Amino acid sequence: MTRPDRPEDVLERLAAVIDSRKPAAGGDPERSYVARLLHRGPDAFLKKIAEEAGEAVMAAKDLQHGAGSAQALVGEVADLWFHSLIALAHFGLGPADVVAELARREGLSGLEEKALRKARAREQAEGAVGQGGQGTP
Amino acid sequence: MTRPDRPEDVLERLAAVIDSRKPAAGGDPERSYVARLLHRGPDAFLKKIAEEAGEAVMAAKDLQHGAGSAQALVGEVADLWFHSLIALAHFGLGPADVVAELARREGLSGLEEKALRKARAREQAEGAVGQGGQGTP
Amino acid sequence: MTRPDRPEDVLERLAAVIDSRKPAAGGDPERSYVARLLHRGPDAFLKKIAEEAGEAVMAAKDLQHGAGSAQALVGEVADLWFHSLIALAHFGLGPADVVAELARREGLSGLEEKALRKARAREQAEGAVGQGGQGTP
Amino acid sequence: MTRPDRPEDVLERLAAVIDSRKPAAGGDPERSYVARLLHRGPDAFLKKIAEEAGEAVMAAKDLQHGAGSAQALVGEVADLWFHSLIALAHFGLGPADVVAELARREGLSGLEEKALRKARAREQAEGAVGQGGQGTP
Repeated sequence: MTRPDRPEDVLERLAAVIDSRKPAAGGDPERSYVARLLHRGPDAFLKKIAEEAGEAVMAAKDLQHGAGSAQALVGEVADLWFHSLIALAHFGLGPADVVAELARREGLSGLEEKALRKARAREQAEGAVGQGGQGTP
Repeated sequence: MTRPDRPEDVLERLAAVIDSRKPAAGGDPERSYVARLLHRGPDAFLKKIAEEAGEAVMAAKDLQHGAGSAQALVGEVADLWFHSLIALAHFGLGPADVVAELARREGLSGLEEKALRKARAREQAEGAVGQGGQGTP
Repeated sequence: MTRPDRPEDVLERLAAVIDSRKPAAGGDPERSYVARLLHRGPDAFLKKIAEEAGEAVMAAKDLQHGAGSAQALVGEVADLWFHSLIALAHFGLGPADVVAELARREGLSGLEEKALRKARAREQAEGAVGQGGQGTP
Repeated sequence: MTRPDRPEDVLERLAAVIDSRKPAAGGDPERSYVARLLHRGPDAFLKKIAEEAGEAVMAAKDLQHGAGSAQALVGEVADLWFHSLIALAHFGLGPADVVAELARREGLSGLEEKALRKARAREQAEGAVGQGGQGTP
């Protein structure tokens, strides 16, 4: 007997539903939001990724300033992941690919050390430039 | 005996490592990339969410046009989810919250129908405005 | 006699119209798109900035791959600047402030040199990390 | 005698400098930040547009919550417009094109009315869906 709501179940089940909404699988854009996005093509769901990333950032800033709610942030991240899954599905990919990539990196010894070196070099250089960023021109 | 790489294990294990990098848990910004982001505060990792969303969109556009690679898109979505996990951790949240929210919505009957109504109303209105979007002013 | 369509005229005139749509100036959310955004508050127009940035990126990627049109990119950048102006107006700022900042940087000798040093440090470090970005964790 | 810092002068002068940094114009990626971005190609500067949009949103959220500074927001919008100009330049476009598009829309009578109709239809539909947005799946 298995618990019905393991994370893997949810992500995989969601991916399966999304796959069933593809035009080739008979998804009906008149009856399904996901089918509609997939039918309209990449710009429709990619635009949502940019938008939901912005909304996740805003929800986090509200929390940082003692406003908003944890649930609002969770909702925006859920929206962001959900639309990521639609984009992946369109290209024949799924959550297992993302999770495998995360696991792969986890296994690469020394990787965080290198990422750190990169971050420190960037900050050092930013310090040199000071307030005002990229500079013009 | 359990398989070591179930998706749930990876996301939860990753969240546990991120939690161990928090300043309060003794994370060392001189030795860990994640500790460094958490130490620098929200703007540091929220900025990465916006950036990685943009990179995911670019990787998807490359694929759409027959360039790029599926692995590049997977890598950008992994970056996006990874930095989402850092933001969640900063506010005491984790992947289980996101997955629970996705499961909750899945259970709400009629929700996709309503989302669809919304999308159709928007498109209809967009059709009315035509090329050029928001209009000015 | 003055030319009616100098860039400065257009940006300033647009800013003046946006200002006239503020709630305090009697802007009517039932009759004006801008008044509506200003009435709904920051999240409404900030979300549009994230969304329009994403759309500008997509339009540019289409052009890069020999699809899309120059006019589509111009339209998305116009949308992006337009919603930036709404955000600025909400906080009592305007295009003159942005232009003054751009001019100020232009005048700072050596600034590009420093920005360059920063960019090179970052790339060097990125090279060290190689494919796969931030690393995990 | 002309004032040296009219907005139009600044944007056009900036565009001229950016044009002079193009590879075809002999821009040297070893000596110029802009030349470096143009040399690296679209992903380099498009990624900055997504990033700077996120930073503008964060600076605005700080202001909304009584933190941050007006100058920080102005600086981020300047960064956003600056990198937009680099993208435009890469595709043979410039600020005059954006300003002409903004002027064109301004001249279209009834456009705001239509944009408003669109926004209201969207909000009405959003109201129907309630908290939680897109729905899943």
